[in-house]
Amino acid sequence: MTEWKTEISSSGEDAVIRGEKLEQVMDMEFADAIWLLLKGEKPGEKESELFNTILSSSIDHGVGNPSTVSARTIQSGGNDMNTSVAGGILSLGDSHGGAIEECMQILQSEKTARQIVEEYLQNGEKIPGIGHKVYDDVDPRAQKMLEKAEKLELSGESVDKMKEIKTVFAEKKVDLVMNVDGATAAVMSDLGWEPELGKGFFIIARTPGIVAHVREEMDEPDFRREKGEYVGK
Amino acid sequence: MTEWKTEISSSGEDAVIRGEKLEQVMDMEFADAIWLLLKGEKPGEKESELFNTILSSSIDHGVGNPSTVSARTIQSGGNDMNTSVAGGILSLGDSHGGAIEECMQILQSEKTARQIVEEYLQNGEKIPGIGHKVYDDVDPRAQKMLEKAEKLELSGESVDKMKEIKTVFAEKKVDLVMNVDGATAAVMSDLGWEPELGKGFFIIARTPGIVAHVREEMDEPDFRREKGEYVGK
Amino acid sequence: MTEWKTEISSSGEDAVIRGEKLEQVMDMEFADAIWLLLKGEKPGEKESELFNTILSSSIDHGVGNPSTVSARTIQSGGNDMNTSVAGGILSLGDSHGGAIEECMQILQSEKTARQIVEEYLQNGEKIPGIGHKVYDDVDPRAQKMLEKAEKLELSGESVDKMKEIKTVFAEKKVDLVMNVDGATAAVMSDLGWEPELGKGFFIIARTPGIVAHVREEMDEPDFRREKGEYVGK
Amino acid sequence: MTEWKTEISSSGEDAVIRGEKLEQVMDMEFADAIWLLLKGEKPGEKESELFNTILSSSIDHGVGNPSTVSARTIQSGGNDMNTSVAGGILSLGDSHGGAIEECMQILQSEKTARQIVEEYLQNGEKIPGIGHKVYDDVDPRAQKMLEKAEKLELSGESVDKMKEIKTVFAEKKVDLVMNVDGATAAVMSDLGWEPELGKGFFIIARTPGIVAHVREEMDEPDFRREKGEYVGK
Repeated sequence: MTEWKTEISSSGEDAVIRGEKLEQVMDMEFADAIWLLLKGEKPGEKESELFNTILSSSIDHGVGNPSTVSARTIQSGGNDMNTSVAGGILSLGDSHGGAIEECMQILQSEKTARQIVEEYLQNGEKIPGIGHKVYDDVDPRAQKMLEKAEKLELSGESVDKMKEIKTVFAEKKVDLVMNVDGATAAVMSDLGWEPELGKGFFIIARTPGIVAHVREEMDEPDFRREKGEYVGK
Repeated sequence: MTEWKTEISSSGEDAVIRGEKLEQVMDMEFADAIWLLLKGEKPGEKESELFNTILSSSIDHGVGNPSTVSARTIQSGGNDMNTSVAGGILSLGDSHGGAIEECMQILQSEKTARQIVEEYLQNGEKIPGIGHKVYDDVDPRAQKMLEKAEKLELSGESVDKMKEIKTVFAEKKVDLVMNVDGATAAVMSDLGWEPELGKGFFIIARTPGIVAHVREEMDEPDFRREKGEYVGK
Repeated sequence: MTEWKTEISSSGEDAVIRGEKLEQVMDMEFADAIWLLLKGEKPGEKESELFNTILSSSIDHGVGNPSTVSARTIQSGGNDMNTSVAGGILSLGDSHGGAIEECMQILQSEKTARQIVEEYLQNGEKIPGIGHKVYDDVDPRAQKMLEKAEKLELSGESVDKMKEIKTVFAEKKVDLVMNVDGATAAVMSDLGWEPELGKGFFIIARTPGIVAHVREEMDEPDFRREKGEYVGK
Repeated sequence: MTEWKTEISSSGEDAVIRGEKLEQVMDMEFADAIWLLLKGEKPGEKESELFNTILSSSIDHGVGNPSTVSARTIQSGGNDMNTSVAGGILSLGDSHGGAIEECMQILQSEKTARQIVEEYLQNGEKIPGIGHKVYDDVDPRAQKMLEKAEKLELSGESVDKMKEIKTVFAEKKVDLVMNVDGATAAVMSDLGWEPELGKGFFIIARTPGIVAHVREEMDEPDFRREKGEYVGK
């Protein structure tokens, strides 16, 4: 039989979150409470401001992506909110929000920017955090995030390393923008978040969007049927 | 083939959330962005403060409840963050956070407090929002939430109705506390949230807690096995 | 702390399924093992034949329905087999396979066919098990299932009641076919299955189809994006 | 917008599974229909017998493992059959049924048994398919499966290679049994299944067991709470 021990929280009369009484957590802003819960300490004022920006930037992103489509499709099968939202979160695999996590890993690794670029080029793989379908010069959301980090004096080694990756790649191959995934990964790294929580943070940020889409789908007819084509024998 | 239309958000260069440019949403606090996303307008300052309290109050609640146990058990089967968190959210069915939603429904119905109590008594069912295993006089979290709502001048008809339900039940049967589910449901109703979003709001609030537990479980040995007993023939 | 007791099976050296040694279960056909597992006794030869027909009839149904679309969409987010298949099963809610369960409930209720039809007409609801978009005279799969049940002498009260529902509805409103859901529900009821397992049986039958679609999707490009349209302010 | 094309099946009047009319599939045994669906052709008589053995051997395995615990815990949160079963399937990650898939990969690789053993020893990793907590001489289920494969003249290269892995490991380190995962992986490989379907086949086999446990849990009290301990500051 397994033991269920935790350093995170307790329930009941003396309920705490990371040692802080739950009644006191009720006086904290939600984003600050998330920070406390995941990092075990409260954020500073500037960290809090930047963390709110990061969370709000990923809150939703249109109706056509896999997490929205799967959540709404599951709702249309005649399901409750929790079942449908969970189905949306299932979509958030390696190819859906995974670039942030991979980017945090390389930024926090021992490897230099040059080594990283060379490795990716050698393996013929896409470097996470640079390149964008639409933007050639600058990704406005990435820019906004980096400016905010700088203004708050929270920009550090990882932002520098991410910029260097972009520069080295421009030298070796082609000049691409740093995208919002790259900026997020760099800023999160400079805020001291570990890569293991990169996907978790994205899930927290996107869950409200999935809830909103499931609620909207409740007013649509049940049983969405896509037009399929049988191309077998 | 279905059409994917939404009033919530768009992606790409002109990405918006409810008509607000995503770059501007990045300047909003996370809780305010959630409010905008789900209600289609920004909260006032006082509404924002109360909404943060509500969200933070449900952020986590110890390791032994169904959502934590299922999320951690799924992680122990050798799974990624998104898969495990989704499994935790699946647990949040009618018996796990459902009291808030049911309570919002009765508070927002046409029925008076007296009619509600009588119906529940007649059907022999538990009234959502009153009673607590530990507290006889007062549930400190419910009290804190109601005080905050009153101080912010956001307490309204639903809080009054919830108090009346408690009073009528005391007359007819037994004097129980208003619990935190009842206070949350009443305050959410006075803030203009519809019951259809009651469970969704709870999912948003609790997802960070599930993420924290899955992260903690990653450092535990894989494949949790509970001690089971075969009592068949 | 909860106790984990079961009458279903045990593991380890003396592993059994419903009292039958697992080594002996290995000599059973899969469908017979399913029957043993869910009903606690082995099927007769004729029951086994009919049960195989019921399971095989629901094994898959094209690419456009909610369970297929959600499973494949989740896989396209960069996920493993178990995560994607689970997402497909989530779709199987009240509006996706739920007609079988609802139909079993009315067939096994105390109500007569006439009472059932009158109630549904009064509530303006669709009677489960009758009507089909394509077939006016006969649904060939329903017919095949009923013929097989009759040939095997396993057709009983529920099949009769289902036919009577169709007849009464024709008298009162319009003459529709008995569809494959209705035939399945009737035959399952005559085989002694309870409605509580109606959805479970459908999940068992359809899981292989979902697995097949997830496998096919693995060879497609990642991150399916549907064309969405923002119609907000 | 994505296109939904499939070689697997179609729906409607001319519904087929891999080119076979659905009405004819209704005359097939369930295990044979699964084989057709996943491999695109019908099994021979001997293949069918062995495939039934493989499926039945994994149908359930007691109440204490992660898939059972998560499915039952989710049901206890107040959820429907599909939601709870999906939660059980989510548990079936790399550490829960994954040994079969990993074992199929090494058996179907170009590497010799000797190379495989040496690599695993060098990396300090457990070789999938050999070793058992209880059995020192023989795992009776593995033995039964191998005997059946041999009797049916379906034992081939992969079974030989698996036996050789066991022999080489005995020479180099210690003499362990071939376990049921190893026997299953070997036999599945000799039947021509690809490793990509290893986990999918296990999901198909185990889904009936998860359904049975969710049904049993419906008769238990809601909201299972495990005894947790807070060990934080």
